[in-house]
Amino acid sequence: MRLDHVGIAVKDAEQAKALFQKLFDLPLVLERTVADQGVKLVKLASGESFVECLEPLTFDTPVGRFLAKRGGGLHHICFAVPDIKAALAAAKAKGVRLIDEVPRIGAAGLPIAFLHPESCGGVLVEYVEKP
Amino acid sequence: MRLDHVGIAVKDAEQAKALFQKLFDLPLVLERTVADQGVKLVKLASGESFVECLEPLTFDTPVGRFLAKRGGGLHHICFAVPDIKAALAAAKAKGVRLIDEVPRIGAAGLPIAFLHPESCGGVLVEYVEKP
Repeated sequence: MRLDHVGIAVKDAEQAKALFQKLFDLPLVLERTVADQGVKLVKLASGESFVECLEPLTFDTPVGRFLAKRGGGLHHICFAVPDIKAALAAAKAKGVRLIDEVPRIGAAGLPIAFLHPESCGGVLVEYVEKP
Repeated sequence: MRLDHVGIAVKDAEQAKALFQKLFDLPLVLERTVADQGVKLVKLASGESFVECLEPLTFDTPVGRFLAKRGGGLHHICFAVPDIKAALAAAKAKGVRLIDEVPRIGAAGLPIAFLHPESCGGVLVEYVEKP
């Protein structure tokens, strides 16, 4: 599986965008508020992969709770899979606890799903379908 | 800058290797004990990038302290740069606090250096020189 992106929880997506562009010269790919995920998202390109900055819209969201507990930083990694339903079924068959049993549509309009960190060595893992 | 790898702090590198290979089908690239960094390292390929599992050799190391505090998980991200001395000088000129003012040789035999998370939005950032 190909590493699609790294997700970073930030207090201020605009500020994070400016910082990562200034320091690492990462081009802006997407900037969007995703109400149903409770985040403002800034996606920057980094080679074949992406860096995704996630600002919670409220404290009562997964990213908001992460930020309150850890003060921001690396939040998740995402692997691109050709068939997300097949990938979720395979993960489940291997005993992985799924956060999303059924894929949902992510900020970029592609099917996504999260796997629980307790099954993935303490790492929150996302799948995104990119055929 | 290109995302070279994601570093994950783990309690047991062998176990993490087996888990990530089983779940995500990531081929093994490198497996090495790096005494001067105090880690056992397992490097797996993921597309153009890598996933690096870091098991501390003792508790009194940066990864050991991270593991004790956070119980494992995402530890750092690494960008490939063509000229690490130039990249460090540029980062310093932009006000970044450097952990390594001078590059050192990493597990793969390439020059590496770390930037302090307080300057990088809460993210521990590594540079690796890949001309």
